[in-house]
Amino acid sequence: MEPTVAVIGATGAVGDVFLRVAAEREFPMKKLKLLASSRSAGTVLHYRGQPITVEETTEASLEDADLVFCSASSEVSKRWGPWLRERGKVMIDDGSAFRMDPTVPLVIPEVNGDDLEWHQGIISIPNCTTTPLAMALNAMRQVAPLYRVTAATYQAVSGTGAAAVRELNAQVAAIGRGEPVPPPTVYPVQIAMNVLPQVDDFDEDDYTKEELKMRNETRKILHEQDLRFAATCVRVPVAITHAEVVHVEFTREAPMAQLHQALKNHPGIVLIEDPKQYVTPLQVEGDDRTYVCRLRPDRTVDHGVTFWCLTDNLRKGAATNAIQIAEELLKRGKI
Amino acid sequence: MEPTVAVIGATGAVGDVFLRVAAEREFPMKKLKLLASSRSAGTVLHYRGQPITVEETTEASLEDADLVFCSASSEVSKRWGPWLRERGKVMIDDGSAFRMDPTVPLVIPEVNGDDLEWHQGIISIPNCTTTPLAMALNAMRQVAPLYRVTAATYQAVSGTGAAAVRELNAQVAAIGRGEPVPPPTVYPVQIAMNVLPQVDDFDEDDYTKEELKMRNETRKILHEQDLRFAATCVRVPVAITHAEVVHVEFTREAPMAQLHQALKNHPGIVLIEDPKQYVTPLQVEGDDRTYVCRLRPDRTVDHGVTFWCLTDNLRKGAATNAIQIAEELLKRGKI
Repeated sequence: MEPTVAVIGATGAVGDVFLRVAAEREFPMKKLKLLASSRSAGTVLHYRGQPITVEETTEASLEDADLVFCSASSEVSKRWGPWLRERGKVMIDDGSAFRMDPTVPLVIPEVNGDDLEWHQGIISIPNCTTTPLAMALNAMRQVAPLYRVTAATYQAVSGTGAAAVRELNAQVAAIGRGEPVPPPTVYPVQIAMNVLPQVDDFDEDDYTKEELKMRNETRKILHEQDLRFAATCVRVPVAITHAEVVHVEFTREAPMAQLHQALKNHPGIVLIEDPKQYVTPLQVEGDDRTYVCRLRPDRTVDHGVTFWCLTDNLRKGAATNAIQIAEELLKRGKI
Repeated sequence: MEPTVAVIGATGAVGDVFLRVAAEREFPMKKLKLLASSRSAGTVLHYRGQPITVEETTEASLEDADLVFCSASSEVSKRWGPWLRERGKVMIDDGSAFRMDPTVPLVIPEVNGDDLEWHQGIISIPNCTTTPLAMALNAMRQVAPLYRVTAATYQAVSGTGAAAVRELNAQVAAIGRGEPVPPPTVYPVQIAMNVLPQVDDFDEDDYTKEELKMRNETRKILHEQDLRFAATCVRVPVAITHAEVVHVEFTREAPMAQLHQALKNHPGIVLIEDPKQYVTPLQVEGDDRTYVCRLRPDRTVDHGVTFWCLTDNLRKGAATNAIQIAEELLKRGKI
């Protein structure tokens, strides 16, 4: 069965990448509908060379869709998720609205694809900082159980959306030309030539929602509700690809050679084995894989390691993961 | 006694700031000599409006100096440090050459000014990432003993030197004008719109020298040789001000209110008490103080906190700390 696919948020930063990844992977579709807010309706986008006019997201425009990808605001997800579910359609949602809903699987196919078996019409994909980390942790816990994880992130502005990319580019252009930097509207302070220790709003215990998402989503994906986890999320003036410094403490010895083997065996992960080699966000942009580099012992604990991991936040962090979920649903006959 | 002061490396990134800070603080000097390599000799710099011609660093040009600030390569420090010491002069060295030498105090005046008492002619100032962290840790250990510290840094390119600032600016200028980015010469890959998980060369245990400096220097400054410490140092496309995400574990309870009080009482530290408020590198540039922000519990350990700290790497991270040491030496009659 080839589904009729609708993309809500087709004109956004993730929507654009979604169309490219779907074309690259030749995702089977009977028909593709591109949807957005009324403001963007009428825009013409292209899929595999064919023009498609963006329609407003409405009951009428969603009526014939079998599979809906949603990358818009939480409000949009909440508006359409239950409506689609009631009609027996499947929504794969890039937003945070349903991620912690116990009736909604939160899935990275290489880690917990089996959670797709119990989906009820809505499937969430993780936050773009959670995905690379949960993949690396899933590989490592094959060697020894996880005890404690801390992370500090270096997050690209495209994680905020297309407007943030424009803001960074406009600031860089002004600095590059020696002109006054236009005042920020997306971020509270200038992001070009700067770093901001805040991603999303503040929440419980003075952590940001992004920091809590990383914790709660990692626990849910790994089915490890008691995992000790703390993160600090920082925005950096990079367009695409999130990077993270991670410390992992195991409950027992995790020999480095076995960790290497587990990471190399894990689908979707590239381990750069020489700990003196690494890749940077610019080098990972456009790549669907998660990179683990600079893996070395953390001797401040009995059984610990620290490493640098990266993934293209728009691809594996969003669009690619969503399409992989759809592929897996088709393979499992769950759509 | 007003000393005759010589600055080795006067034309470098720190040298420039040194002159500004010395003027601001009205550091007492009988005479000021600006020295550099033969390549820079003849350059005219200004101090408090007066032109001073840069001379080559030689025995002759150093002969009448009482106090020498050195911010150049390790080779330069090693060439002149022992020579100056033998002649009863005092060198305050910004480089790493002597920091771990047991005959050389490594000093942040607000933390371990008493170590100046045993100096033998060479005094080192800490690496620019060590200084803000050691200050914050020194405040916090008034509340409870430190057990374990981990840090991930966001380091400005001026820490590498003036050539790195030019490289970042040239790359930003090219990107801003839509031109091809000139190939990097200072860093192995483009730093504009990117982050690099390497500062300095790789060394023991696959940590970089910068990461080991942070550990070894913090232990020496705090007189805590067994402090468990691990860092990952990352370069970010920021001109000035290093930032760090830090996790601290204490051996016993460290109540948040007491930590606040200790940080507020510590000279040179600004605590931003509301954990939902913070400053960024652009806002700290030009400031002599160390900022501690986003201080909140780390509940992954029994007694832990995590926070964001920043300092202008050219001022408190280098020039200001050097001048404060000189002021302290004069006050203590140790020069």
